[in-house]
Amino acid sequence: MLTSRQYASMTVSIMANILYQIPGDMTAALGAGELRRREEILRRWAAPGTSVEVADSPGGPLSIESAAEEFLCVGSMLTALSKRDDQPDAVIIGCFGDPGLPAVREVLECPVVGPLEASFHLGAQLGRRVGILTVLESLDPLMESLVRSMGESLNYAGCVAVNVPVLELHKEPQALVDRAAEAARPLVEDRRADVVLLGCMSMSFQDLAGPISQKLGVPVLNPARCALRTAETMVALELTHSRRTYPKPRKAVRGFGSAAVQKTASSS
Amino acid sequence: MLTSRQYASMTVSIMANILYQIPGDMTAALGAGELRRREEILRRWAAPGTSVEVADSPGGPLSIESAAEEFLCVGSMLTALSKRDDQPDAVIIGCFGDPGLPAVREVLECPVVGPLEASFHLGAQLGRRVGILTVLESLDPLMESLVRSMGESLNYAGCVAVNVPVLELHKEPQALVDRAAEAARPLVEDRRADVVLLGCMSMSFQDLAGPISQKLGVPVLNPARCALRTAETMVALELTHSRRTYPKPRKAVRGFGSAAVQKTASSS
Amino acid sequence: MLTSRQYASMTVSIMANILYQIPGDMTAALGAGELRRREEILRRWAAPGTSVEVADSPGGPLSIESAAEEFLCVGSMLTALSKRDDQPDAVIIGCFGDPGLPAVREVLECPVVGPLEASFHLGAQLGRRVGILTVLESLDPLMESLVRSMGESLNYAGCVAVNVPVLELHKEPQALVDRAAEAARPLVEDRRADVVLLGCMSMSFQDLAGPISQKLGVPVLNPARCALRTAETMVALELTHSRRTYPKPRKAVRGFGSAAVQKTASSS
Amino acid sequence: MLTSRQYASMTVSIMANILYQIPGDMTAALGAGELRRREEILRRWAAPGTSVEVADSPGGPLSIESAAEEFLCVGSMLTALSKRDDQPDAVIIGCFGDPGLPAVREVLECPVVGPLEASFHLGAQLGRRVGILTVLESLDPLMESLVRSMGESLNYAGCVAVNVPVLELHKEPQALVDRAAEAARPLVEDRRADVVLLGCMSMSFQDLAGPISQKLGVPVLNPARCALRTAETMVALELTHSRRTYPKPRKAVRGFGSAAVQKTASSS
Amino acid sequence: MLTSRQYASMTVSIMANILYQIPGDMTAALGAGELRRREEILRRWAAPGTSVEVADSPGGPLSIESAAEEFLCVGSMLTALSKRDDQPDAVIIGCFGDPGLPAVREVLECPVVGPLEASFHLGAQLGRRVGILTVLESLDPLMESLVRSMGESLNYAGCVAVNVPVLELHKEPQALVDRAAEAARPLVEDRRADVVLLGCMSMSFQDLAGPISQKLGVPVLNPARCALRTAETMVALELTHSRRTYPKPRKAVRGFGSAAVQKTASSS
Amino acid sequence: MLTSRQYASMTVSIMANILYQIPGDMTAALGAGELRRREEILRRWAAPGTSVEVADSPGGPLSIESAAEEFLCVGSMLTALSKRDDQPDAVIIGCFGDPGLPAVREVLECPVVGPLEASFHLGAQLGRRVGILTVLESLDPLMESLVRSMGESLNYAGCVAVNVPVLELHKEPQALVDRAAEAARPLVEDRRADVVLLGCMSMSFQDLAGPISQKLGVPVLNPARCALRTAETMVALELTHSRRTYPKPRKAVRGFGSAAVQKTASSS
Repeated sequence: MLTSRQYASMTVSIMANILYQIPGDMTAALGAGELRRREEILRRWAAPGTSVEVADSPGGPLSIESAAEEFLCVGSMLTALSKRDDQPDAVIIGCFGDPGLPAVREVLECPVVGPLEASFHLGAQLGRRVGILTVLESLDPLMESLVRSMGESLNYAGCVAVNVPVLELHKEPQALVDRAAEAARPLVEDRRADVVLLGCMSMSFQDLAGPISQKLGVPVLNPARCALRTAETMVALELTHSRRTYPKPRKAVRGFGSAAVQKTASSS
Repeated sequence: MLTSRQYASMTVSIMANILYQIPGDMTAALGAGELRRREEILRRWAAPGTSVEVADSPGGPLSIESAAEEFLCVGSMLTALSKRDDQPDAVIIGCFGDPGLPAVREVLECPVVGPLEASFHLGAQLGRRVGILTVLESLDPLMESLVRSMGESLNYAGCVAVNVPVLELHKEPQALVDRAAEAARPLVEDRRADVVLLGCMSMSFQDLAGPISQKLGVPVLNPARCALRTAETMVALELTHSRRTYPKPRKAVRGFGSAAVQKTASSS
Repeated sequence: MLTSRQYASMTVSIMANILYQIPGDMTAALGAGELRRREEILRRWAAPGTSVEVADSPGGPLSIESAAEEFLCVGSMLTALSKRDDQPDAVIIGCFGDPGLPAVREVLECPVVGPLEASFHLGAQLGRRVGILTVLESLDPLMESLVRSMGESLNYAGCVAVNVPVLELHKEPQALVDRAAEAARPLVEDRRADVVLLGCMSMSFQDLAGPISQKLGVPVLNPARCALRTAETMVALELTHSRRTYPKPRKAVRGFGSAAVQKTASSS
Repeated sequence: MLTSRQYASMTVSIMANILYQIPGDMTAALGAGELRRREEILRRWAAPGTSVEVADSPGGPLSIESAAEEFLCVGSMLTALSKRDDQPDAVIIGCFGDPGLPAVREVLECPVVGPLEASFHLGAQLGRRVGILTVLESLDPLMESLVRSMGESLNYAGCVAVNVPVLELHKEPQALVDRAAEAARPLVEDRRADVVLLGCMSMSFQDLAGPISQKLGVPVLNPARCALRTAETMVALELTHSRRTYPKPRKAVRGFGSAAVQKTASSS
Repeated sequence: MLTSRQYASMTVSIMANILYQIPGDMTAALGAGELRRREEILRRWAAPGTSVEVADSPGGPLSIESAAEEFLCVGSMLTALSKRDDQPDAVIIGCFGDPGLPAVREVLECPVVGPLEASFHLGAQLGRRVGILTVLESLDPLMESLVRSMGESLNYAGCVAVNVPVLELHKEPQALVDRAAEAARPLVEDRRADVVLLGCMSMSFQDLAGPISQKLGVPVLNPARCALRTAETMVALELTHSRRTYPKPRKAVRGFGSAAVQKTASSS
Repeated sequence: MLTSRQYASMTVSIMANILYQIPGDMTAALGAGELRRREEILRRWAAPGTSVEVADSPGGPLSIESAAEEFLCVGSMLTALSKRDDQPDAVIIGCFGDPGLPAVREVLECPVVGPLEASFHLGAQLGRRVGILTVLESLDPLMESLVRSMGESLNYAGCVAVNVPVLELHKEPQALVDRAAEAARPLVEDRRADVVLLGCMSMSFQDLAGPISQKLGVPVLNPARCALRTAETMVALELTHSRRTYPKPRKAVRGFGSAAVQKTASSS
C-alpha cells in the first residue's frame, strides 16, 4: 500500500456510457438548463472512464409527486428510450421512486438502476434499519409499497417529510440542512432509523447528504450518487438483470417503437 | 327463514353504476364486439340494481402480458377515465394484474377495485394458501411483486401457467378445463395451494372457474366476478379508499385532463 | 350506463338463505327481542333476494369478552347448528372474534363467514394498514392472535379500546361516536392505521361506522355488514371453503348430534 | 465437578403438584386404566419432588382429531378444572394441539403448559427448522395455524403424517418406529426440518422419540416429556403467564362454576 | 395428588454434570472468588441430582460489552473447553449474548445452552412479546441481530437499558430493583412487551427477577436459571443439537487442541 | 454521449487505499504467494485510483469451513488489524461468510465490507430471489443464519454445494464451470433462485462467475469483485457505518492492542 496519498496519473480506458433517464418532462418544467446542470454534476461524481448523459421524457409529467405520476411517466420514458439511436451501457431511472423499473428492465438488455433500490441496498450495509426523508408526506405509502415489493420491510424504519416547498429547496442550503435534519430526527429517535436516504432528487443534486448526516449523527445517502456507482459497478462486472425476474416481452410492446433500444431487445 | 326456495318478486331500488375499465385498447385488438360481450356477461353476473358498463382505453396496449404493458396501459386508462362525462359509483380495473390501482385510487373519489386484490382477499377466506393459475409463465414475477406489496406473501402459494396460447383459449372449453386443472395440480400438490385464482380474464369470461374447481378439488375463483361483487359491496356500504394510503394529488396530473373524473377529484 | 339514477323495479329470483348464528346465549342475556331487532337490521342491509335468520346458542356464554368465552361458546354453537331442521346457504358467526370459525367450516358444507375475517379482507383493499377499535382493551391479545393466524400481521396496525361500558353503548349515539373517534385517533396517528374496523357487534348494529369515519377521516368498516355481503358473495359465486384447509372430520363429532347440519356433513 | 457418576442419595423437598389435564373424555373412550397408565409414565418421567396427577374431562370428545374437537373439548375441560377442590401448581393440557391454551391461562393463576408450544420452543434450540410428525394428515392446517399464532412460521418446516391407524399404534413398536421414521424422512430431506416433534400423544406415551430419532438422524422430541419439564421449570422459577397477554376475565365465565379453580381466579 | 405439601425424602440418582462456561476471563477481572460465588448460586438453583461447575476462559475479554468482545471471547472459550480432561453432560455459555453458540455446538457432542435463547423461548410461552432489559444501550443492535437469527422478530418487543454502571449494580439491591423496573416500563407500555428478560448476568446472579417482576407487573425471567433448567431438561430427555444445523467440522479446528472435548468430537 | 468507445486517457487523482483482510492464516496454509496472487487480481479488478493490499491474520485458522472457524478467526483478524501502522480507507473481510463483520465495524472508523453482504445486496437488484452456491454443504445453516440476521429471508432462495474438494478447484476450470452450473441448477429450477452468488473465494479468484452464468442462464456474482466495488463506493461517497448499529466500544477491547487501528478507534 502506498504510504502517502499522492498517486501518479494513470491512463484510463475502462468505459461506461451511462444514461440518466428522467422519466418526466423536465425541459418543459424547468428548462433544458436543469438537465445540463444535473449532467454536469453527475459527471463530476462519476468515476474516471464513465460518460454520463442526462435525458428526459418529452410529454411526461412535469414532476412526480404522486402514484399517478409514477405510473403515468413510464409511457413517455419508454417512448423516449425507444427513440434513441445509440445504446447506453446502463440506465439510471432519474427519480427516487424508481418508476417503471421492472418495465424498463424487461425491454432493455443493459442493467437498469433505481435510486431508491440502489441506495437502500447500500444503506442496509451501513446500519440495521433504513429510513427515508422525502419532501412530500404523501409519498409515504408509495415508499412503503416499494419497500414491501423489494422484500425489505424488516429493514425499513419508515418515511418522514421535510415540509419545505420544492421551489424553496434551492434558496438557502444551510436552512435546508437544518430543517432536513430536524425533520429526520424523529425518524432516527422514535422510529429507530440507523441510516437515512435522501428521498428527493432536488436535495440530492444539491449534495446535502454530507451536511445533513453531520448534523443528524447517522449516515445519510445521496441516491443519485448511489445509483451512479451501482450502474458503474454493473457495467464493470458485466452484470445485468435476471430474465427469470424480468422476462423479455414475447411480443412487441405497442408504442415502444422502431428505434434502437427495441432493436437491442428484439435482437437477443 | 323461508322453508322453500320460492321468493316473491321484489321491487329493487338500490343502484350502483359500475364501470369495468379495460386498461388496454381492446377495440383495436379484438373489436368492439368483445367489449359488448364482456359487458353482457358482467350484467348477467351483477346483482339486481347494478348497472355495468365496459369501456377500454384507446391507444393502450393491445394486450397486457408484461410488466412493461402493465405500466404503459396506465396512461391511456387515466386518459380514458378523464374524458368521461359521467361518473361511475365504482371502477373495476379490467385486468388481472390490477395495473395502476394506486394511481386510479389517487385521482378518483369512488372505490376502485382490482380483480387480483379482490379475488385474493376473498380466496384467503376459503383456505390457508392462495395460488394463481395464469396463461403466461412470464407473469410469475409480476404476480409475486403484487402479492408482496399487498403484504400477503405468507398466504401465497405461487403461480403456475396453463400452456395454451391465448388465441386457442376459446376453442374447446372442455379441453381447456382439462389442461387448466392439470396445470394447476402441482400448485395444489407440491406448493400446497388450498385455493386457486384464475389469473386470466379470457378464462374468467368463459366462466370456467366452476368446472376447473370440480376437477381440481379445491375452490377456484373467477376474479371478474369477485371484483364485481366487491365493487357492489363498496358502493352498498358507502366505502372508498383511505386518503392516508392513496392521497389526492396536490396538483393537477398532466394529461389527466378537463373531464368529469378529474372534476370530481378536484372538487373534493 | 344509465344517465339517471332512476331504475325500474325488477323481479328478483336470486336467493340466499343466510343464517347469522350468535355463538352465545343472547336470549338469556338480552331477551329474544334483541335477536329479532338484529334480524330486522340485517334484513334491511341485505341485498334483494337474501333471506336472513338470526339464531343464538342456548347454554352458551351471555357475552363473549374473553378468550375463555371465545372457546366455550363453540360447543353450544355447534349444538345449536346440529339441531336445525333446515340448512342455510351460508352461515355468519355473529361475533367479531370469529369464534370457532375453522370448527364450523369443518362440519358444514356451506360457506361460513367470520366478521373479523370478512371486514379485515375488505378493509385491506381500502388502505395499507388495518386497525381495530374494540370496546374492551383485554381483547387486544386475542385480536393479534387471530390476525397472526390469518397471516395478516404485516397489514395490521393494532387494536385500541373505546372504554365505554357495554351497557352504556346504547344511550347516546352522538356521544358514542365522539368517544369512539377520539379513542381511535392514536390508532390512526401513532400506529398509522389507514382503515379501522369496528370490533364490536353492539356498535355495528347501531350502524355507527359512517359517522365515526366522518369524524376520524379514514374508512371505518361495519363488520356485520361486511360479513353479510361476503356471505351473499360466497352463495352467488357458489364458493365454499377448501377441504384442504378445513377437512371434513373422519368420524362423528361427539355432541354434534343427529340433526340436519350433520346429515349434510356426513352425506358428502 | 464430580469425577464419577455416583451420587449420594439426597433429601428432596422441592415440590410441584402438576395436573396433566386431558381435554377429552378418555375414560369413556379407553377406560380409566389408560389415565392411570399415563399417570404412571409421567411420574416415572418427572423430576424428584414432582407429583403428577392425570385427569380427563367428562363429556368431552372421545378423541381430538379435528379443529371441531379442538374447540369442543375446551368447555368440558374448563368444567372439569372448575370442579376441582384443590389447586395444582401447574397444568399441562394433555393434547398435542394445545386446545384452549389461552382460555385456560385466562381463568387460572398457575402456569399452563401446552405440549406443542413447549416442545416447539425446546426444539427450536436444537436446530433451525422444526417439523411435526402427526398421525392424521388432516391436522396439518390446524398445526400451521397454531405455529402462525405462535409467531414461529419462519422456524417451521411443516407437518407430515404417519399413515398408521391410531388403534394399530400400540401393536408393534418396532414396525411403528420404522414407519414413523419413513414418514418423517421427506419432512427432513425435502422440507428441510432439522428437528422433529412427535405430534401424537399415543406415540409419545410409548416413548418412541429416541428410537425414531436414531433411525431418522435428527433430534425427535416427545412433547409430553417436554411439557412436563417445562411445567416443572415454571413452578421452580415461580413464573406464570403475563396478564397483558392473558387478562383475567372481568366477569364470571358462565359454566365455569363454583369450584376451587374459579375461586382462585376470582380471588386475585 | 398429595393433599399436603409434605413429601417424604427420596433417593435421587438422576444426574447431570453441567458446565457453566464463562467466555471471558472472569478470574482476571473479578478474581476466582466470583466464579465460586456463581457456582454456589447455580448449585442452589439446580435440581436434585445436578452437579454444576463454573469455569472461565483464561485470556478472554475481561467483560463482554460489545460485538467485538462477543466474537473475541469465542477463541479463548473454545481453548478452555478443549483443555478439559472430563466431559460435561451439558454446557451453558455463561453470557447473555450467547457468544459462539453455533461454534460450540459444532465442536461438542453434548447439548449447549445459551441464556438468551433459553430464556427467550421460555418467555415466549408466558406472553406474546418478549423484551430485553440490559445494562448497556449499546447492546441493542446485537440483541436484535440475535433475535433475527433465531427467527423470533415477530415475538420481539425490543431492548432497553437500565443505565446503572455495572460496578454499582451490587450496591443497593432495592434501588437497583426500582431503577430496573422504571427503565423497563416504556418497554412494557410503549413497545408492548408482555414478558421481560433480564439481559445481564450480574443482575441475574443477584436473583432480582422476582422483585422487578412484582414492581413491573409482567413476568421477568432470570436467564441464568432458565439456561440451567433447559440444560437439565436436555440431559434428562437425552437431547442434543441437530447435526443438520450444527454439522461437525470435517477437519480439526486449529487451536482447538488435543484435549478431551475434541476427543469426543472426533470420536463420533 | 460519446458515439465511439474510444476515450482519451485521463488524469486520475481519486484514491482509495483498500485493505483486503483475510481472517485466517493463509500464509501458513498456502504460502505468501497466494496472498500476492490475490492482491494482483484485486488490483486488476480495482477502479483507477484504487490501491489494494491483501493481508492475512497470523495464528488464525488455515481455512474457514465451519461456524467454529468463523468465530475463531475474529480474534486473530482483530489482532492483525490492531498491529498495523497505517490506516486503510476501507476494509474488506476476505471470506464469504463475513466473519466478525459487526466486530470490525465497532472498532474501526472506516467502512468495512463483507463479500456476502455486498454481493447479496447487489444481486437483489438483479432478480427477485438470491441463492448461494458454496463448496461445502455444511455451510448452509451458517448462510441462512447470516441471511436472517441481514433481514433478507424473503429474498433468499437457499444454498447448494458444488461437490468438488477445494484442492481440486484449481485443476480444470472448464470442468469446474460445468460442475458448478450443474450443482446450481436445482437452486434455480426447484428453489427458484433468479440470481446466484458464488459463495467461495477460491472460485471467485478464478473469476468463473461469467462462464457459470452463461451456462446457467441467470446472473452469477463474484463476491470478491462486488465487495471491492462496494468498498470503493463507500470511500468515494465518504460513507461509513452507523454508530447506532455498530457503537464504538466504551472501553479498550482486550487484545486489540496499542497499534494504529485502535488509535483511530480511541481518538474519535
